[in-house]
Amino acid sequence: MKTVYVAIMGLGTVGGGTYKILTENHDKIASAYGIDVRVAKVLDKDLDKLKAAGISADVMTDKLDDILNDENISVVAELMGGVEPAKTFITKALKAGKSVVTANKELISKHWGELESVARENNVGLYFEASCVGGVPVIRTLKESLQGDNILMVMGIINGTTNYILTKMSDCGMSYDEALKEAQQLGFAEFNPTADVDGYDAMYKLSILSSLAFHTCIPYTEIYREGITKITKNDIASGKQMGYTLKLLAIGKREGNSVEVRVHPTFVRNSHPLASVSGSFNAVFLKGDFVDDVMLYGRGAGARPTGSAVVSDIVYCAGKNKHEHTDFVNNGKVAEGIEIKSDFSSKYYIALTVEDKAGVLAKITDVWGKNNVSINSISQRDVADGVAPIIIMTHFTSENAVQRSIAQLSKLDCVKKVDSIIRVID
Amino acid sequence: MKTVYVAIMGLGTVGGGTYKILTENHDKIASAYGIDVRVAKVLDKDLDKLKAAGISADVMTDKLDDILNDENISVVAELMGGVEPAKTFITKALKAGKSVVTANKELISKHWGELESVARENNVGLYFEASCVGGVPVIRTLKESLQGDNILMVMGIINGTTNYILTKMSDCGMSYDEALKEAQQLGFAEFNPTADVDGYDAMYKLSILSSLAFHTCIPYTEIYREGITKITKNDIASGKQMGYTLKLLAIGKREGNSVEVRVHPTFVRNSHPLASVSGSFNAVFLKGDFVDDVMLYGRGAGARPTGSAVVSDIVYCAGKNKHEHTDFVNNGKVAEGIEIKSDFSSKYYIALTVEDKAGVLAKITDVWGKNNVSINSISQRDVADGVAPIIIMTHFTSENAVQRSIAQLSKLDCVKKVDSIIRVID
Repeated sequence: MKTVYVAIMGLGTVGGGTYKILTENHDKIASAYGIDVRVAKVLDKDLDKLKAAGISADVMTDKLDDILNDENISVVAELMGGVEPAKTFITKALKAGKSVVTANKELISKHWGELESVARENNVGLYFEASCVGGVPVIRTLKESLQGDNILMVMGIINGTTNYILTKMSDCGMSYDEALKEAQQLGFAEFNPTADVDGYDAMYKLSILSSLAFHTCIPYTEIYREGITKITKNDIASGKQMGYTLKLLAIGKREGNSVEVRVHPTFVRNSHPLASVSGSFNAVFLKGDFVDDVMLYGRGAGARPTGSAVVSDIVYCAGKNKHEHTDFVNNGKVAEGIEIKSDFSSKYYIALTVEDKAGVLAKITDVWGKNNVSINSISQRDVADGVAPIIIMTHFTSENAVQRSIAQLSKLDCVKKVDSIIRVID
Repeated sequence: MKTVYVAIMGLGTVGGGTYKILTENHDKIASAYGIDVRVAKVLDKDLDKLKAAGISADVMTDKLDDILNDENISVVAELMGGVEPAKTFITKALKAGKSVVTANKELISKHWGELESVARENNVGLYFEASCVGGVPVIRTLKESLQGDNILMVMGIINGTTNYILTKMSDCGMSYDEALKEAQQLGFAEFNPTADVDGYDAMYKLSILSSLAFHTCIPYTEIYREGITKITKNDIASGKQMGYTLKLLAIGKREGNSVEVRVHPTFVRNSHPLASVSGSFNAVFLKGDFVDDVMLYGRGAGARPTGSAVVSDIVYCAGKNKHEHTDFVNNGKVAEGIEIKSDFSSKYYIALTVEDKAGVLAKITDVWGKNNVSINSISQRDVADGVAPIIIMTHFTSENAVQRSIAQLSKLDCVKKVDSIIRVID
């Protein structure tokens, strides 16, 4: 049986889960895959934490060199998160001839090309199944399945924190602040929740997933990003009335050489498979030109599911003689000939508060008309204090035309407030 | 660039889809995977069909030897279906040193061990992603992902025909016969629908999927099988009233060394992700001890999705230097120490027609009680002509106890008919 010595860098949530799986399921992995995976080193700056976790004295360390200089170690799992020192540590590990498995979406999204080059130069592997959507095997699927298809779309709920918050707002009528607070108390949201609620986490993941799906580098800087912090109880309730569930979607589409990539809150028709993906569950919807729709669903975060993805990469890596490197990300730039669109097309839900006076509707519809935005329906809700909430649903139209219209509407005296602009998927 | 010459055996639905993908997406596969896949031969006993499909004269053939003797051909895709002559053709191809890709679930389920041995002896590969659930990459996921987990359950809607029929019965109020007829007219069901509607197709697939999930051979002969031919409009309507959707489920569970495997109609609670898998869509639900729930969803059949799975295997195979063979199926028998349970536990829906007389309910509940079946609810529907339909919902109980109870109930004078026994998943 092949013996593979592994180092774990960072014993936080995911590192802890990974260690637990490699320990508890060691014999299963050995019998099913013929690989004896041994944890040779666990690195953390906090040695007391390692002690408390029961890591034995000869395995625990706070010095990177103990890993780099251990010739037995062939695979290093980086589970520290953040760009530095993770990037330096990974680079050194690759240069020391060790394959790297990482759950670090921010790092891969920002420095994939550079790390891939170092890995290639040193003839070792770079794996990151755990960087996107926890236990859902979407990276492997994009690399090892659907090879015959042109992937036309990758669309998903790929952030557990925001999906938990939106589910709570929808199911329990909570406000955003209330749901966030509960998520923080339960450990589903960080003390500083910006990376999740402002859509950065989903943006990093979409950069990785759409690069793999479209076989061209899609830099995260090219992705339109909008978080969920402005979503109100009214938005959720209003969507419900019309048969929609609000989700933070990451969407990548390719048509010929033209790509659009965006992260934003979206009303999803209740009959769509993504609408029922609740709580901390995540799902990725792929569309190929032959396979049509494929959806992968599972737990998007957490020690055990994400640890499972890390271990999958470790076993996968250990069973390979040679790593296949990804050429199209090497320079970290969009390939020549590929255009990332600055505009895109969608249906829209727009909520305005307007004066309750004759002629107001005419002024508003005039603005939409002049900008070539085709309206599907306008409905007025209960009037109070001389103002009326209005809900406008558009047909498919351009984002730029909507933004232009909104800018013009905001200048009208009769428009008191633009409450919400939410894209819609039927 | 690596050039790989492929032969297609059988130009039916899946063969046609495969040929189309390899032709239309040839350049995409070449640029994304660095493999120039060329169709060197297409074999079919009907040469006129090949001509009509535009296969060129030097590629078409009705002689197996033209493939076996072509030294350039390294991969053969068997897409004829059925056990013979597919088995003979595959065996000869493997012995001629060619790797085989097949969509043939019946053949793999019945002769996997034997074919795997021949493949191993000849140092070539055997791939069958397309044999289970069309375009859904479930075989690759079971082999290349989730390696760190003990898979505890594989449960799915894995037959497109029956799901189409049940969806039509549910959505349009059709009878089984009406829905079957429509499915036949649309090409979703065969003229002789037995393999699908009696659950054989799902049984073959479950044998393959549960073998891979549990890392031990699960012979199809060990699987409890019940089709959908007895399902009535009443069953569907009655389930709907209680918040259930009727699905033909294939279920494999493992607990320690004990396995249960079964295919039968099942009431699935509407909030369960499998309940909303409609029409010809299929889905497989996996549960691992660390990753928890993972669901894979997509089109379970058809030229394009199944062709996509065949092409995925061809590209995967072409990119490999060496095939990893599956040891645990070699003898085609259950591994020593693994027990396949003859009984299993479930909740049940039972519909009876009984005499509308005092004391009848007492007699019925007495039978259940004596067999230790715990009843959750009994409800009586509208009485007509002196008889009353009764719906009994049980708590978790043993299949054997239910069957014993039913046998005893059938002997009671007051029980006019046992209308339905349907297992339930909440």
